[in-house]
Amino acid sequence: MRGCAGILKIPMSAHSKPVISESRIRVRYAETDQMGVVYHSNHFIWFEVGRVDLLRQLGFTYKQMEKDDQLFIPLVDARCRYKAPALYDDELIVRTHVRNFREKLIVFGYELVRTTDNLLLAEGETTHVITGSDLKPRTLPEKYIEALAGAAGRPHASGIK
Amino acid sequence: MRGCAGILKIPMSAHSKPVISESRIRVRYAETDQMGVVYHSNHFIWFEVGRVDLLRQLGFTYKQMEKDDQLFIPLVDARCRYKAPALYDDELIVRTHVRNFREKLIVFGYELVRTTDNLLLAEGETTHVITGSDLKPRTLPEKYIEALAGAAGRPHASGIK
Amino acid sequence: MRGCAGILKIPMSAHSKPVISESRIRVRYAETDQMGVVYHSNHFIWFEVGRVDLLRQLGFTYKQMEKDDQLFIPLVDARCRYKAPALYDDELIVRTHVRNFREKLIVFGYELVRTTDNLLLAEGETTHVITGSDLKPRTLPEKYIEALAGAAGRPHASGIK
Amino acid sequence: MRGCAGILKIPMSAHSKPVISESRIRVRYAETDQMGVVYHSNHFIWFEVGRVDLLRQLGFTYKQMEKDDQLFIPLVDARCRYKAPALYDDELIVRTHVRNFREKLIVFGYELVRTTDNLLLAEGETTHVITGSDLKPRTLPEKYIEALAGAAGRPHASGIK
Repeated sequence: MRGCAGILKIPMSAHSKPVISESRIRVRYAETDQMGVVYHSNHFIWFEVGRVDLLRQLGFTYKQMEKDDQLFIPLVDARCRYKAPALYDDELIVRTHVRNFREKLIVFGYELVRTTDNLLLAEGETTHVITGSDLKPRTLPEKYIEALAGAAGRPHASGIK
Repeated sequence: MRGCAGILKIPMSAHSKPVISESRIRVRYAETDQMGVVYHSNHFIWFEVGRVDLLRQLGFTYKQMEKDDQLFIPLVDARCRYKAPALYDDELIVRTHVRNFREKLIVFGYELVRTTDNLLLAEGETTHVITGSDLKPRTLPEKYIEALAGAAGRPHASGIK
Repeated sequence: MRGCAGILKIPMSAHSKPVISESRIRVRYAETDQMGVVYHSNHFIWFEVGRVDLLRQLGFTYKQMEKDDQLFIPLVDARCRYKAPALYDDELIVRTHVRNFREKLIVFGYELVRTTDNLLLAEGETTHVITGSDLKPRTLPEKYIEALAGAAGRPHASGIK
Repeated sequence: MRGCAGILKIPMSAHSKPVISESRIRVRYAETDQMGVVYHSNHFIWFEVGRVDLLRQLGFTYKQMEKDDQLFIPLVDARCRYKAPALYDDELIVRTHVRNFREKLIVFGYELVRTTDNLLLAEGETTHVITGSDLKPRTLPEKYIEALAGAAGRPHASGIK
């Protein structure tokens, strides 16, 4: 992987098992609209819940990333494909994984599933750049690179650009 | 009013006419819920729109208050009485006025009215303390006191505590 | 209590113990604002989470109230007093109880507490009327009256108007 | 175009000029997060504002589509590319156009621009299916097809599948 400038697709058959976090969501009334289903922008907030839980599972919190390391991960791209509506009071699971990453960029992938019948309600991904509090680009410190490499199921994080 | 320590009810028959700002709101689909009406927490966001427009009408912006003077006005109390539901795509007006103020506290009052028939949909008020960016109490600078006194229809702002 | 037309304050020293539900909330990034704290309208959404959990604890769900009995509980009044800011990633508990009720009206009371130090962040209450799907007033069916009377710590629900 | 089953890319050099609506947005404090910029899910709500204004400009309102024709346009795909942060109190314009459509599907495209310097803050698109109130697929009535064809700058709407 040394010297690779482009983004790396993480093969699902990688050396170690990729980490997939699971976050439970109960649909709030506030999240529904008059169509009787969840309004579509809420899925992106649930993806945030998933993303933060995945980071927590990797041993660090986004809160501390901001506080201790002055690291921010603003979005540059967000996408969601809606398969079936989420309904009021549904119990959902957000499954989150690291889809790709480089030292200046992370891509998270998400699946939104209804717990009662395991139906896939939506799929999405968000692309984030690494910045300081001034929103200027920064390089992800080594400890995060290691953790993300583990999460992505990569044997080594060396040589990632 | 000199030496008055308590909060001052502004008489509506005061010496000058109180300022009432009017902000137009178009109800968004995102703001409705599956009851087919606007979800109640959105009214407090519309009150924010009204409050900021009132300040703008008084000659300063809340944005500049934060940036230039490091002044913040976090809420300590918020209330809304709902008279009739706001519906999707309704055109509404938020009428905002300064109900009370002291040098460390401001109370705004709001009326939410539907434009088509002038029906009162909701009334509310929010109480704010004046703080710095550290959320510690501060005293409102003189220029704001003067503007708020004018907005409240008071002849003089002197002696306000 | 027979024949009482006004709203009934539930004495906390009532015959049976009032039910207080506890709902866990993890503050989402989406709920913060640029002051670095949770934006105030979100507290009302958290109160909704608390209210629904209290109903669930009493043996019925708000979802089924709407579906099976065509019962809705729109708000006529909402209030929150903010004591201390809620911060990103905080773990909070919403404690909800039935403060008052009649056959056409319910008042819920809320406390928002930070789990790490049990600090009270906010207190609130919401008043709801009972309606059909047409938002016209209805009378709460007996099974709900009984459950709410139990929740409120009242010995009997008889004679409530 | 007769017999074309796939989705139709609307050439920008089409026979008539495509309609691009412009919606003004003032950034609300509620829409910011503790990064000091607008939280990313709000862009999708602004796109809704743009979409509804475009329909209004074409001579019908989404509200009436739902009420009179029992037509709904739930999303199946939503995407946003973020170029620069939107800030509190910014005045923005959402430019909306019909990117593609068939009789069972509409794709809207959006540009989010800051008014002060015309800077492009974000681009997005949303894909909608046409359904009844039961969220089952329906075919777009002729009057909407005609209006959308005009909006897309197509000479004729005939033969669209």
